[in-house]
Amino acid sequence: MSNRLKYLLDEERIPRHWYNIQADLPKALPPVLHPGTMQPVGPDDLAPLFPMALIEQEVSTEREIEIPEPVRDIYRLWRPAPLFRARRLEKALGTPAKIFYKYEGVSPAGSHKPNTAVAQAFYNREAGIKRLSTETGAGQWGSSLAFAGALFDIDVTVFQVRVSYDQKPYRRALMESYGARCIASPSNETASGRAVLERRADHPGSLGIAISEAVEIAAQREDTKYALGSVLNHVLLHQTVVGLEAIEQMRMADAWPDVIVGCTGGGSNFAGIAFPFIGESLRGGAKPRVVAVEPAACPSLTRGRYAYDFGDTAHLTPLTKMHTLGSTFTPPGFHAGGLRYHGMAPLVSHVKELGLIEAVAYHQTECFAAGVQFARTEGILPAPEANHAVKGAIEEALRCKREGRAETILFNLCGHGHFDMQAYSDYAAGKLSDQQYDESELAMALSGLPSVPEPA
Amino acid sequence: MSNRLKYLLDEERIPRHWYNIQADLPKALPPVLHPGTMQPVGPDDLAPLFPMALIEQEVSTEREIEIPEPVRDIYRLWRPAPLFRARRLEKALGTPAKIFYKYEGVSPAGSHKPNTAVAQAFYNREAGIKRLSTETGAGQWGSSLAFAGALFDIDVTVFQVRVSYDQKPYRRALMESYGARCIASPSNETASGRAVLERRADHPGSLGIAISEAVEIAAQREDTKYALGSVLNHVLLHQTVVGLEAIEQMRMADAWPDVIVGCTGGGSNFAGIAFPFIGESLRGGAKPRVVAVEPAACPSLTRGRYAYDFGDTAHLTPLTKMHTLGSTFTPPGFHAGGLRYHGMAPLVSHVKELGLIEAVAYHQTECFAAGVQFARTEGILPAPEANHAVKGAIEEALRCKREGRAETILFNLCGHGHFDMQAYSDYAAGKLSDQQYDESELAMALSGLPSVPEPA
Repeated sequence: MSNRLKYLLDEERIPRHWYNIQADLPKALPPVLHPGTMQPVGPDDLAPLFPMALIEQEVSTEREIEIPEPVRDIYRLWRPAPLFRARRLEKALGTPAKIFYKYEGVSPAGSHKPNTAVAQAFYNREAGIKRLSTETGAGQWGSSLAFAGALFDIDVTVFQVRVSYDQKPYRRALMESYGARCIASPSNETASGRAVLERRADHPGSLGIAISEAVEIAAQREDTKYALGSVLNHVLLHQTVVGLEAIEQMRMADAWPDVIVGCTGGGSNFAGIAFPFIGESLRGGAKPRVVAVEPAACPSLTRGRYAYDFGDTAHLTPLTKMHTLGSTFTPPGFHAGGLRYHGMAPLVSHVKELGLIEAVAYHQTECFAAGVQFARTEGILPAPEANHAVKGAIEEALRCKREGRAETILFNLCGHGHFDMQAYSDYAAGKLSDQQYDESELAMALSGLPSVPEPA
Repeated sequence: MSNRLKYLLDEERIPRHWYNIQADLPKALPPVLHPGTMQPVGPDDLAPLFPMALIEQEVSTEREIEIPEPVRDIYRLWRPAPLFRARRLEKALGTPAKIFYKYEGVSPAGSHKPNTAVAQAFYNREAGIKRLSTETGAGQWGSSLAFAGALFDIDVTVFQVRVSYDQKPYRRALMESYGARCIASPSNETASGRAVLERRADHPGSLGIAISEAVEIAAQREDTKYALGSVLNHVLLHQTVVGLEAIEQMRMADAWPDVIVGCTGGGSNFAGIAFPFIGESLRGGAKPRVVAVEPAACPSLTRGRYAYDFGDTAHLTPLTKMHTLGSTFTPPGFHAGGLRYHGMAPLVSHVKELGLIEAVAYHQTECFAAGVQFARTEGILPAPEANHAVKGAIEEALRCKREGRAETILFNLCGHGHFDMQAYSDYAAGKLSDQQYDESELAMALSGLPSVPEPA
């Protein structure tokens, strides 16, 4: 074990392939179903929304998928991302554990999201697509796709939930600085938006409505496709650069994780750090414990059901088998907006069912406390989403202290909190509470899950 | 010339010494004068405000001043900072010039300021100081000192100009997350603050008043010192890590700058990148053109007088010889808050007088346009201050295009703009204007410069 603080890789060592965990799984991922026929969807069903290269990645079982050079060329702006040893945090905790963290906040958008935004923009550009539409809540994903669109000369249209559009103008300003067009959703630009506005002119919007608007725009126009920032297999695939680099960096550090921790909303940053290590273990390597940390107010992995469900509230998407709280479940408005999703990525759900990962849920105030402790020791102020991973790692380190075990802990610090200062301001002022969902609402949402016949 | 995009140095290659340009100057810096006696101030005059180690650095003429290991150890959190080749910007401009930029936004506070904040916190800690007081406007400096204080276990009290305190709560939230105490200035905690509030209870504050309050607190208490984020020789000294790393990285790139560009407010980030290169030239190396870019609304180098003046509006500081617009000059409220200072660092002023640098001024809207072009090509959204350097570099690159010269341009991208999205929002909405100062006010401020007898 060296005495270093930071493990940097040369830009030539940006991975040349993404890692596809589907190649190594002991059991195949359940198919995606068409909600009308209940039959597996084929590439043609998805072609209106995504370019064929991404659809192929979605279903591929090849272990390594080459990262195109133009994508690597843009990754070089911030990748390889640094791996840090959290020596000051270890000392503050008095733990014998060694804590490492991979820091994705060095990207121009401040989070891991550009890892897939750049890849998606590239494949769309290759397919001759001139415009991408997407939705965003707080704006982490929208700003990442705006950034990627600027570099590949693709017009990006972002439907931003109106309440965020009005109340959080800074992410919008970032999207617009990158040249994206930002539309408050529900809008008059789509039939689905107009239908909502007819019912209620001052509707505050929701992620579900914004998805409907973005999908509608993409489905209508030949030159326009849709882009999603998490959940889908190809999105998780692109994020594996995080873990692939971390493997190299852990080797530089002459260490290997006993425990890997990531926060989970849709599942992409978690899969990004964890899947390459899980792959190593599936191919005979050491098997780390892998801990998904989710918000207690939206606990799909710990309280949801593993079942087929829709990805959106308006039921426009295919059915995927995943841990879900029910597509009509509305999580309370806590600050880690990136973790407020009723479902979990099908691949993350599948590895959970296979016993390859475990899950734990924490409340937001204890996560903010962990984030502040991290900032005061390690210097970086984490995004509210990343605070969940920090909390998970600290809990593991304190367990090691109680047990007297010098384990090695690795977690993904998926973004900085510089766009989330209102949340920290509220936390410091004692205005944050641990909002809890309504148990009866959860029960109702779960009871409304679609009925899907078990496949043969 | 290699084909790389990014030049990274190993953390072992963080400089071991700061570079002190005072060792190489052909003419010594004019002395700092006591405003009462008009005699040079000695270390004892400064001892109530600064620890002796920093006072020694302020007057040292040693070329190399060792960076203490605990400071380097914290620098390792983000240093060495990357040097980028701006290939996409070059292509967008169609210039034969090669553009390089050093990126200081990778620090936890998002700017170059922690380079000196960490050093100042260290020396104060070594001197047994328990508390540091400082002032901040928008908060770039205050948040950097708060960060450094957290890591060295020093209580940091920041007097923040009330109008910023009220209107820009996010930097305050960052300072408080690092554990600093943030006080709206004018406050009831100091005699100078109370005096202002007695005259006007709702006074919006000013940097001059906040300095008075911070200095008053430090002068009163044995365990408390004062910290300043720019202007002083020791602050500029600490920033030379920027240029020292850039020298190594330009060598890695097999290139050397013909032109170096930096933005100037107090002068510290500019000196940080420029002084080590100027030092190389003073010792017989190639002599690059060095261009200081300042805001046209606060043009101390291009429109100010080189004269002895006070550093603050309340005339509590010693007199320093510098380019000044007059200590009573109030710059209009443009968005690059870090550049709104009536004077210029004495060392930067001195090298200007020696003909080692040149200066140019641009208006804020053209600087924002440059920043947006940079974001859409290079991906990083610069801070409004850094936009001035981007604008300067683009102008040099366009000159190279007109002249058909393949010069090498290096500029300092001193911070990211993630805390400045209101400014970008206003720019996108067409709400930014090129505010100009009042010529008669400038004339009056200059006519009020203190009368200082020429030294023998």
